[in-house]
Amino acid sequence: MADPRFFSLAGPFTLGRLAELSGAEMAPGADAGAVFSDVAALDAAGASDIGFLDNRKYMADFIASKAGACVVHPDMAPRAPAGMLLLLSPDPYRAYAHIAQAFYPVTPPEPWVAPTAWVDPTARIAEGCRIEPGAVIGARAEIGRRCRIGANVVVGDGVAIGDECVLGANATLSHAILGNRVVIYPGARIGQDGFGFAMGPEGHLKVPQLGRVVIGNGVEIGANTTIDRGAGPDTVIGDGCMIDNLVQIGHNVQLGRGCVIVAQVGISGSTRIGDFVAAGGQAGITGHLRIGSGARIAAQSGVMRDIAAGETVGGAPAVPMAEWLRQSALLGKLGRRKGRLPPE
Amino acid sequence: MADPRFFSLAGPFTLGRLAELSGAEMAPGADAGAVFSDVAALDAAGASDIGFLDNRKYMADFIASKAGACVVHPDMAPRAPAGMLLLLSPDPYRAYAHIAQAFYPVTPPEPWVAPTAWVDPTARIAEGCRIEPGAVIGARAEIGRRCRIGANVVVGDGVAIGDECVLGANATLSHAILGNRVVIYPGARIGQDGFGFAMGPEGHLKVPQLGRVVIGNGVEIGANTTIDRGAGPDTVIGDGCMIDNLVQIGHNVQLGRGCVIVAQVGISGSTRIGDFVAAGGQAGITGHLRIGSGARIAAQSGVMRDIAAGETVGGAPAVPMAEWLRQSALLGKLGRRKGRLPPE
Amino acid sequence: MADPRFFSLAGPFTLGRLAELSGAEMAPGADAGAVFSDVAALDAAGASDIGFLDNRKYMADFIASKAGACVVHPDMAPRAPAGMLLLLSPDPYRAYAHIAQAFYPVTPPEPWVAPTAWVDPTARIAEGCRIEPGAVIGARAEIGRRCRIGANVVVGDGVAIGDECVLGANATLSHAILGNRVVIYPGARIGQDGFGFAMGPEGHLKVPQLGRVVIGNGVEIGANTTIDRGAGPDTVIGDGCMIDNLVQIGHNVQLGRGCVIVAQVGISGSTRIGDFVAAGGQAGITGHLRIGSGARIAAQSGVMRDIAAGETVGGAPAVPMAEWLRQSALLGKLGRRKGRLPPE
Repeated sequence: MADPRFFSLAGPFTLGRLAELSGAEMAPGADAGAVFSDVAALDAAGASDIGFLDNRKYMADFIASKAGACVVHPDMAPRAPAGMLLLLSPDPYRAYAHIAQAFYPVTPPEPWVAPTAWVDPTARIAEGCRIEPGAVIGARAEIGRRCRIGANVVVGDGVAIGDECVLGANATLSHAILGNRVVIYPGARIGQDGFGFAMGPEGHLKVPQLGRVVIGNGVEIGANTTIDRGAGPDTVIGDGCMIDNLVQIGHNVQLGRGCVIVAQVGISGSTRIGDFVAAGGQAGITGHLRIGSGARIAAQSGVMRDIAAGETVGGAPAVPMAEWLRQSALLGKLGRRKGRLPPE
Repeated sequence: MADPRFFSLAGPFTLGRLAELSGAEMAPGADAGAVFSDVAALDAAGASDIGFLDNRKYMADFIASKAGACVVHPDMAPRAPAGMLLLLSPDPYRAYAHIAQAFYPVTPPEPWVAPTAWVDPTARIAEGCRIEPGAVIGARAEIGRRCRIGANVVVGDGVAIGDECVLGANATLSHAILGNRVVIYPGARIGQDGFGFAMGPEGHLKVPQLGRVVIGNGVEIGANTTIDRGAGPDTVIGDGCMIDNLVQIGHNVQLGRGCVIVAQVGISGSTRIGDFVAAGGQAGITGHLRIGSGARIAAQSGVMRDIAAGETVGGAPAVPMAEWLRQSALLGKLGRRKGRLPPE
Repeated sequence: MADPRFFSLAGPFTLGRLAELSGAEMAPGADAGAVFSDVAALDAAGASDIGFLDNRKYMADFIASKAGACVVHPDMAPRAPAGMLLLLSPDPYRAYAHIAQAFYPVTPPEPWVAPTAWVDPTARIAEGCRIEPGAVIGARAEIGRRCRIGANVVVGDGVAIGDECVLGANATLSHAILGNRVVIYPGARIGQDGFGFAMGPEGHLKVPQLGRVVIGNGVEIGANTTIDRGAGPDTVIGDGCMIDNLVQIGHNVQLGRGCVIVAQVGISGSTRIGDFVAAGGQAGITGHLRIGSGARIAAQSGVMRDIAAGETVGGAPAVPMAEWLRQSALLGKLGRRKGRLPPE
């Protein structure tokens, strides 16, 4: 079970209840009244635990698992060990997410303003918020209901935050407008000046950065990620985007809804990205581009041109995935050849 | 106009005054007495706004703009919409920077030491400084005149900071000497130990890092960027360098004047870089190299050898730009071929 | 000498004592009673200083050095300038580390709990700790003996920290268990939620992250580095690992003992890495891989498959080093060819 120093376990739940919560179906013959007390990884689970199988890399763990129950894709059901109860789902990971949320529910914050927090008298804090020690809330800032403002967070003057947001410890926000249920991880930097200046041999001249960062509902922004405010237009992060750690998002960038941006990606200024775009770790996207909805960008790619909706690209400079795989295969072959290099 | 929750608008200004402030020339026939009240992006501007055109990608916005005036390169003037007043400049972005600075001037900080700031009694704070809540100023630190020390900043023992510096929220400095007008963005880490140790199977042995970080005048250092102090010599950042977010600068690195280092670049220890070198996003530069003044390093490059002054390189390993473009073109062609790969 | 604003010099020491401390041997004829007062870089050292030569790139500095003594590999001894006393070591850098530690010893913290620190009444702080201003220690946290908790650090509820650990300013820890002598650099983020959610067009659903970060003895974790806690299993960092700045380590990753992870590396979730693995700057390692002990991964590599113990790889996708060098050489040749590209 999860370490009780850090996690509070709810339950137990019957298999029937877990099926209901998760939208999964009980496999034929499964006992709806069987009781489970926790979730666990397949290689660590016991008879009272429920696990899940999503990635086929862990098939061996599934086959050998002692878990009392497991959420699996129907195709995997025949390989289950004898006696394991099954919940069947076309998306076992999503079904598991619901189950794990039931066992480890997120509770509303215990309202508090720590004595060492600094809240400007002109700030407006709605009901049910928790402002932890050392947090600083600037003038005219507005914080919605039931927000958790972590220790040593800094919310700049005028920043507006919706309901049920979580700001992780030591995060900073300025020049930003946040929707509801936004989660900012520790150390994220939102709303500082973009990297805008007129270069010149007599010195680089700073261009005032007059926009904001506007963040939709249900967005998560990872630890130590940096999102600069717009230069004139806003930097915009659409509803439901998931942004990992150490990502850089430049000024004026727009992300549509539901984008998934993996760790250490960099997106240069003024690039506009559609809905449900996915970018793999360490990918780089040049400025002033248009990336269509549903595009997929492989890890470490270098995107230097517009990408059409639904296209998958890889490599640096990034090309359609099939071309990149061919490039890589060819380079691989050449690298394995034993003979001499061709003459220069 | 910029969101008044975050920005204070000055002005209005006449076109003649804006020409004077920016060094741009009024186009023939432009009315020097026409009054403008704000800057705006070309696609959002109205009759009382002044915009600018710098990147030809935005030509369509220029042609369709309702801005009352615009700063443009003289070559673009013929394409201006009827009735738009023009300020002509060979460097429209720089001219715009001056104009935007006039409309949105940086004001000196309102002097204050917040009650929750911690200032060691042996620290020396010059006149006109603002020390925000939760900031910590260590023993014997020296802060120049009219500095802004952001909330929850930590200035270590003995650190010396010049006049009119800005330290963004939650930044930390130790073992550092800063010039005047330095801007450190939120979460930047300056002066911690370099990554120096003697490796060995019996354990890696830490080597004391006995240098400092010495930062010149007018330098900007981006959010969550990390600059380690020297191992013995100092790490040095020359006057006027602009360093973006999430950049890593190793111990003993020296940057000359006016370098531009884009986000997520990494520069390994002891590399010496000349004046006005530019490095694109996510480029990596190996340690112990010499990079000549004026060199340009493309985004995502991997620099593994010295670079001559003025040279432009790309790729990994980085080669002269023309060679890299040729490599990329060739790989692109091979990737697009439909036939089979050659036999192994 | 090192700037006395930041460093306290011990000594002087005789050459004989320095030989003893470092395990190096005095070269024949060297005067064991000669007295040295400081360490210095070879190009800055004087008669009372001792330097070291480790990287042959600095041979010219060695030959011209005025250092009174130097630690060198025996092979280099014949090139020493006349009059320089030599300490001979097969690993001069390690020997120098011992000598520099003697001149600049790390002293135990002066115990203190700053008035502006926030220590939850249920936290347990062992003897000899220093809790600097603005630090926040959560409920039921446990801090071992003689720890330094830097200014504005946040230690979350239930976190356990061993003896003689150092937490740099503004670092944050949650859901973490640390061994002894762990050094966390400023701004590092340890223990936040991993990037785990079930993707879907109706929105991405967060999966509770129920593991911890478990850190062994003698580990160093660099500035602004991010280490997510496990999703169910723990994220584990083995004894003696050295992790540089701005590194991303995903949930469930396991590092063995003594790994060296250079700046801006990213390691995706659930990858297991053996002992004494080295990864160069900006390398990326995909999730769910196995990297054997002693493997070496070149800077900027993209590792997309398992790596056997002891193997050295480079490139993206990463291949054995010899193959990558051949690929690079071939590409380099093609890029330098003056003729036309082959027809498409």
